[in-house]
Order: sequence, then structure tokens, then C-alpha cells
Amino acid sequence: MKHLLTTATLEPSWATTLLDTAAELKKTLLGRQVRKLPTLRGRTVITLFYENSTRTRVSFEVAGKWMSADVVNVSVGGSSVSKGESLRDTALTLAAVGADCVIIRHPASGAAHRLATWLEGTGTAVINAGDGMHEHPTQALLDAATLRERLGDLAGKRIGIVGDLLHSRVARSNVHLLRTLGAEVVLVAPPTLVPVGVEQWGVPVSYDLDAELPALDAVMLLRVQAERMHGGYFPSAKEYSIAYGLNEARLRMLPEHAVVLHPGPMLRGMEIASAVADSPRAAITDQVSNGVHMRMAVLYHLLAGEEAVA
Amino acid sequence: MKHLLTTATLEPSWATTLLDTAAELKKTLLGRQVRKLPTLRGRTVITLFYENSTRTRVSFEVAGKWMSADVVNVSVGGSSVSKGESLRDTALTLAAVGADCVIIRHPASGAAHRLATWLEGTGTAVINAGDGMHEHPTQALLDAATLRERLGDLAGKRIGIVGDLLHSRVARSNVHLLRTLGAEVVLVAPPTLVPVGVEQWGVPVSYDLDAELPALDAVMLLRVQAERMHGGYFPSAKEYSIAYGLNEARLRMLPEHAVVLHPGPMLRGMEIASAVADSPRAAITDQVSNGVHMRMAVLYHLLAGEEAVA
Amino acid sequence: MKHLLTTATLEPSWATTLLDTAAELKKTLLGRQVRKLPTLRGRTVITLFYENSTRTRVSFEVAGKWMSADVVNVSVGGSSVSKGESLRDTALTLAAVGADCVIIRHPASGAAHRLATWLEGTGTAVINAGDGMHEHPTQALLDAATLRERLGDLAGKRIGIVGDLLHSRVARSNVHLLRTLGAEVVLVAPPTLVPVGVEQWGVPVSYDLDAELPALDAVMLLRVQAERMHGGYFPSAKEYSIAYGLNEARLRMLPEHAVVLHPGPMLRGMEIASAVADSPRAAITDQVSNGVHMRMAVLYHLLAGEEAVA
Repeated sequence: MKHLLTTATLEPSWATTLLDTAAELKKTLLGRQVRKLPTLRGRTVITLFYENSTRTRVSFEVAGKWMSADVVNVSVGGSSVSKGESLRDTALTLAAVGADCVIIRHPASGAAHRLATWLEGTGTAVINAGDGMHEHPTQALLDAATLRERLGDLAGKRIGIVGDLLHSRVARSNVHLLRTLGAEVVLVAPPTLVPVGVEQWGVPVSYDLDAELPALDAVMLLRVQAERMHGGYFPSAKEYSIAYGLNEARLRMLPEHAVVLHPGPMLRGMEIASAVADSPRAAITDQVSNGVHMRMAVLYHLLAGEEAVA
Repeated sequence: MKHLLTTATLEPSWATTLLDTAAELKKTLLGRQVRKLPTLRGRTVITLFYENSTRTRVSFEVAGKWMSADVVNVSVGGSSVSKGESLRDTALTLAAVGADCVIIRHPASGAAHRLATWLEGTGTAVINAGDGMHEHPTQALLDAATLRERLGDLAGKRIGIVGDLLHSRVARSNVHLLRTLGAEVVLVAPPTLVPVGVEQWGVPVSYDLDAELPALDAVMLLRVQAERMHGGYFPSAKEYSIAYGLNEARLRMLPEHAVVLHPGPMLRGMEIASAVADSPRAAITDQVSNGVHMRMAVLYHLLAGEEAVA
Repeated sequence: MKHLLTTATLEPSWATTLLDTAAELKKTLLGRQVRKLPTLRGRTVITLFYENSTRTRVSFEVAGKWMSADVVNVSVGGSSVSKGESLRDTALTLAAVGADCVIIRHPASGAAHRLATWLEGTGTAVINAGDGMHEHPTQALLDAATLRERLGDLAGKRIGIVGDLLHSRVARSNVHLLRTLGAEVVLVAPPTLVPVGVEQWGVPVSYDLDAELPALDAVMLLRVQAERMHGGYFPSAKEYSIAYGLNEARLRMLPEHAVVLHPGPMLRGMEIASAVADSPRAAITDQVSNGVHMRMAVLYHLLAGEEAVA
């Protein structure tokens, strides 16, 4: 594994290795008797964020620091971009400055792939921390880690991904990874929030959440990205909440063992009722803490691991 | 001590312990032969600032790093808040991401207390780095450390707190702590900059700085927060300066041994004359360097210390 | 060497020492077998940037971290300045907070010198990371390191500095340093981008790039700072590109061994053709990686080195 750009082409053996490593790291750090590993001492990790995402950036930063890497944050606002440097030159600069890994969040789909192409031969690894409406592979990996903790092996489990599929990079990354891990996926969304070409994702789409709930082992909610909804007919917050919000009545329609996930930030009362978000059925803070261990696992395999898996 | 939220309920024994630890740390680091302690290695400290404060953030960051903690900065501008996540979810996220301590600066009074309530049971400590017009306990502690260096035991010493009491979290925290340490406090301010309910602070209020000066062992100036003064009758900069600015004539009215403090940033020529700010009677840069040692002491007792004091 | 403010008064022996130390560090870190030096452990380096410059800030941050210093970033936007603190008080605060070194980028020419004056006696070193249109000494040093790698000893070498001389701090720092190192310099620019008083720089000015190219050992391009061009007659991007852009035809006019430098960020297609920027004749990514080693060398001699050179 040289980069982590997508879950679409992530080999099953790598997916499993990452899940196992993250679980191992979690056990090692449990209770925080061991708090810091020397593994990446002297490695330089640069976060390059063209969009704000405190949550993701902090998770990567903590992951790097707990393995003793040097972490340097670069946050690019509108102004710097207007100085005129291309993403390619920025990438080459960061490689030349000594980055062993660039973690990129960018509003354009495909940005992380381009970065990896440009950095060919420099030895700098690229991690896609969210590119436009395309992919967010570490989110999918931490979600899978959380599901595996709660449900065991994911083969044959039925997972519903619910909400704003149109604008979601999380949904796409999760569909790929969950299928790789042998799960059945069903997408649930209002018709106007389903992307064109969804049939290529290879999983069924439903508009009726209530009909799906009884058969699900897990519900993964998506953030409703109202800030991206312009020019088109989109449901209002109230309409969305009535038809797709995960309230207590809907929670009762799920099997007892089913688990609820949300990548955050949550819109409580709209996407999810507060009582659901805070119930033991929700694994939302587990997702966050698994996020650190998963990102440690990814950094470990990219920067310290061997090239090949057995 | 699980959190540091206020000086109002800080036990006298804890106040003394913090002052003693800070003085000890200062001695250890003096001349910088020892430059870094391994005390908090592997602990994760997150600064969560909803208001800009370079001075306070840098002080905490240096304090954490000199004790080998991992320090992660989160600066929340207007835009991120508008993504819709509640402060409570942000707090739970930071705890889940592995924060041993969250240092919060927030424009709303009471924010730090709420955070501590929400984090009950997570093991994450909270330090109030300034909440609205309410409290700023580490500022009061570093002020007390500075006064003790110059004046010795504070019992019976008379301290004037001068200026914009209405908008000052520093004043409130100082009144509580100074009284705990046995000092006499007098508040001095123009009538329109005295908060309603000041009588509950339990200390006298004067409008006449010149009358108070000869009896004071120390003058603590407050920043005039003109940016918060709208809708009401407030003194102009010139009026303020004439009646309450600490100029050279007023410096001469103080006893020889009296010391001048200001939490910064200073408005020279308005709150304080440049010659006074730069005189040996002022302890303003001492406050800054004591700030680092005090914040080290607070982090030490919250994150590495025992639960109980002897 | 107590500070690094300018190349104008940098003694030749210091210039050589810095170049030698940077080359030594580069060799040590080559192949990254050694990745981190303990040299500055416990030293505190503060970057104080009043202008955005990801490239320069990251380079200094990496340099500090590879020598185990604690690096604290302070980025001052318009809002904080408006709180009213003077640069002098900010400087004294950073010294009091424990900064062993302040690295300042500021829009006002002379800011770094003022800082150094104010910090007299505090033991805090100042590095000028670009002050207005005045100087940027570490850029000149890393340029010289890059030229020396490609051309050997610079004595007698002929270097053309081409472009927006009027707004360039890089040009001024380079002229001083290159002359100190014994190189011949020729400045090349459109007439309206030549500063008044350029004759005091002591080097010839030409308006005709094509006439100069055949005799040059190196071309140093400058960034065209269109954002500073108002009120006056300045060439359009097209005019500039035609007369001064380094395209492939012009590259062929240079001697075989000549090297092309650009401090970045580049405006490809305008200042420099993409094919030229990416050709092996260009040393642009070398400049970036030499920048880290040079900044390590500067930090080393300011913070860990002896006061005197042999």
C-alpha cells in the first residue's frame, strides 16, 4: 500500500490488515498505560486542508503524535489559493520540504488521486481525508472497525446507509468497503438526494426507511449537507426529519442488536433524535475513538510497514 | 482537583499548592539548564478557542510542551460553528479522540462549567481559559504568583483592581482568589463600568483612583474592552485616561514598594502610560513568564497529580 | 551571530559557515537514515506571521522539529492586531513566554530589526522571515546553497536576478549575499518594476533579458507581485510574459550548465514556462529541500552554536 485514496480498489487483505492493526493498537492503548509509541519518530506528516474539518484533522494529528511523528498543519483559506500556486506545485513543495505523508482534504473530487500521481517517485504517501463528493476512506475504515466491534464479522450483515447520498463522500467509501468485507448494503434516501449513476454502486436503493429498518443490523446515518443544496428540489429540514430522521419510534423498529452510526457533526433533532444519539445503541463516540486507532494503523502501514502483505 | 473552572470555589489548600508548584517549576527551569520535563509525556492536551487569544493559547501550549505533552490546537471561527455541531458534541468528540485535558476559551459565560458537566465520567479534565465576562482562573493564579514574588505573603495586603470591571472575567477571578489568600481588595472603576450586583463580590467599590492609591500594595489594571461597549454611556478613551489611566503622577502616589500589574494586551497611553508600563515597578513581563509556570502547575496537578492534597 | 535580520551585514565567514552547516546537515539526513537530531531539545521557537506564507512557515516548522525544538505557531490576522497591542508588546510577551527564537514575517520593512532592538537583553533571537519589500535572508541563503550545489564556488559566477525587483525582498537579500560570496550580479526587469535608488545596490540593471542570458551561470526568477501593483504603469501579464517570461526559447539561450531558480509560488506560463520549471535545469524543488537544511543551520547557530566563529 503506497497511498490510501479510495476504498474502491482497496484489496480485501489490506482492509482486514488495517482493521486488525487498529484493533491491536486500541488494545495496546487501552486504559492508556501505554500512551505513546515510538513507531514514527522522525517521520513528518503534513495535513493539507482546503476545507475546514476540525474533527478529521484533530483525529489525524492525534494519531500521528501518539506514534511520535512530527505533524505539521497546513490550512489553506481562499486567500492563499489566490496567490496563484497550483495544487501540483504545493504538492511538490510539501514533498521537497520532507513530508513522508500528505493528508489532504479538498473540495474537488479526485484531488487526492492527482496528488498521488504528481508525487510519484518522491516517496511521499498520500491519504485522502475527503475529496469533494467522492471518497473519505478512513471514515469508512473507522466505521467498519466500529461495526466489527459491535457485530463481529461483517459477512452477511445488512447495513443501511441513510440520508444525503448525493453529497456524501462517506456513503461511497462505505459502500465499497462494506461490500469488500462481505456485507449487504441498502441505500435509503429521498429521491432528490440520490446521485445520478447510483446503479453503478451495485447496491439497492430504497426511499422508504421504515420498510428497511426491521431487517438491518446497522444504520449508518449521513450528514445532511444543506450548505451544498442549491438549485433543485430538496426536502426541508422538517420534511427530512419526518421521513428519514432516526427518532425513538424508528429505533424501536430496528432489531435489538442493531447499531446506529453517524460520522458527525450531527444535526440533533433533524437527522437523529437526541435520545437516539445518546442511547447505548448508538456507537457514535466509539466511531470517534476508533478513528484515532484506524488512522494510526493507516499511517503505520504507509510509513513504517512493509510493502507487501502476506 | 478534577477541573479548573473558577477561583470562587478553589480551596485555599489548592490555591497554595498551585502557587508553590509554579514557584518550584520556575526555580527548576531558571536559567533554562533544565528546559523540558517528561512529566506529561503521552498526555494529550487540546486547546479549544472560540475567541482569539494568542497570548493565552501560546502560554498554555508552551506549558504543555515543556512538560512533553502532545498539544493540539483547535480554533473555532464563525464558519465551523455554523456547520451546526453543538458545543456538547464537540466536547464529547474531543474526549473520544483522546484528550486528557480540554482548555476552553469561549464567549459565553458558563461554557467551561457546561463542558465539565458533559465530560463527567470521561476522565477528561477541563480548564477554563476565559468564559465570556465570567472567569479566567489561570490569569488570577498567575497574578497571585506575581504578587507573592514581589510582596511576599498576600494576607493583609491591599490590592486595587482598576478599570473595566463590567466586562472583565479577570477581575472576578482575581477578587475570589485574592480574598481566599487573605488579601484586601478594592475595586476602582467609573460608575458605568461597574457591573450590577457587584456588592455580591463582597469588596468595596471606589470611583476615585487617586484617593485609593496611597494605601495600595498593588494596582491591577484591567483591559478596557471598548469592543464590548455599545448602547450605554461609557467614558471616551480620553475621559478614561484622565480619570483612571495610570500615569507617572499617579505612580508617584503609590507607596514605594507597590507593584503594577496588567494582564495585557495593554493600551499604552490610555490605560497605562508607557513610562509606567516599562518601569521596574511594573511586573507585566513577570506576569507573562509566571503564566507559563502556573499553567504547567495546573496541568501537572490535573493530569499527573494525586487526587487529594495533604 | 545573535539574530539573522539581513544579508547586507552578514559577515562572509558566517555566510560560509551557514552554507557549510546546511550542506553537512543535508548529508546527515540524506536517505533519512537519521531523521531527527536532539540538538534543540527544550528550545522554544515561535513563528510570528503577520502575512500568510505556508511555504516559509512550514519550512521553519519542519527545520525546528527535525532538531527536536518545540515549535509554536502564531498567525496574526487583521482582527487580533485591532485589539490594539503594539508589535513591541507582542515581542516582549513572546520573549517572556519563553521563546528562544522568534521567526517573524511582517508586511512592514524593518519590522524584524525593530523586534531585535526591543528584545535586546532578553536572550531571544530574531529571524527575519520576510519584512515588507526589504529582506528575506534565509531565502537568499537557501538560494546560495542551491547555486553552490550546482555551480560550485560562486566567486566569479554571473547570476541574473529577473523580474519584479520593485516589490521583492528576495532580490535585495540575494544581491547582498551573492556579492558577499564573490558572484557578479545583474538585475533584469521592466523599467517600471525597478525600485528607485537601485544604484545603491551596486550592481548593473538591464531591461533586456535576451541580451543577458548567454553570459549567465544562473537565472533567479522573482515572483511577480501583481497584488501590490496599483497606481502606476505596470506591464500586463501578457506583456511581462513576452518580454521576461523564461520560456523554452530563452532556456536555450542560456549556457548548458546554467541553472534556473524560482522562490515560489510560481506563476507557470507567465513568469516561467511549465516545461522550463519541470526541466532538470531548474533547481526549484532543490531550493525547497535546501530551505529546510538552511533553516536548521540558522537555528542551530543562533540557538545552540557558539557566539564566535573561528
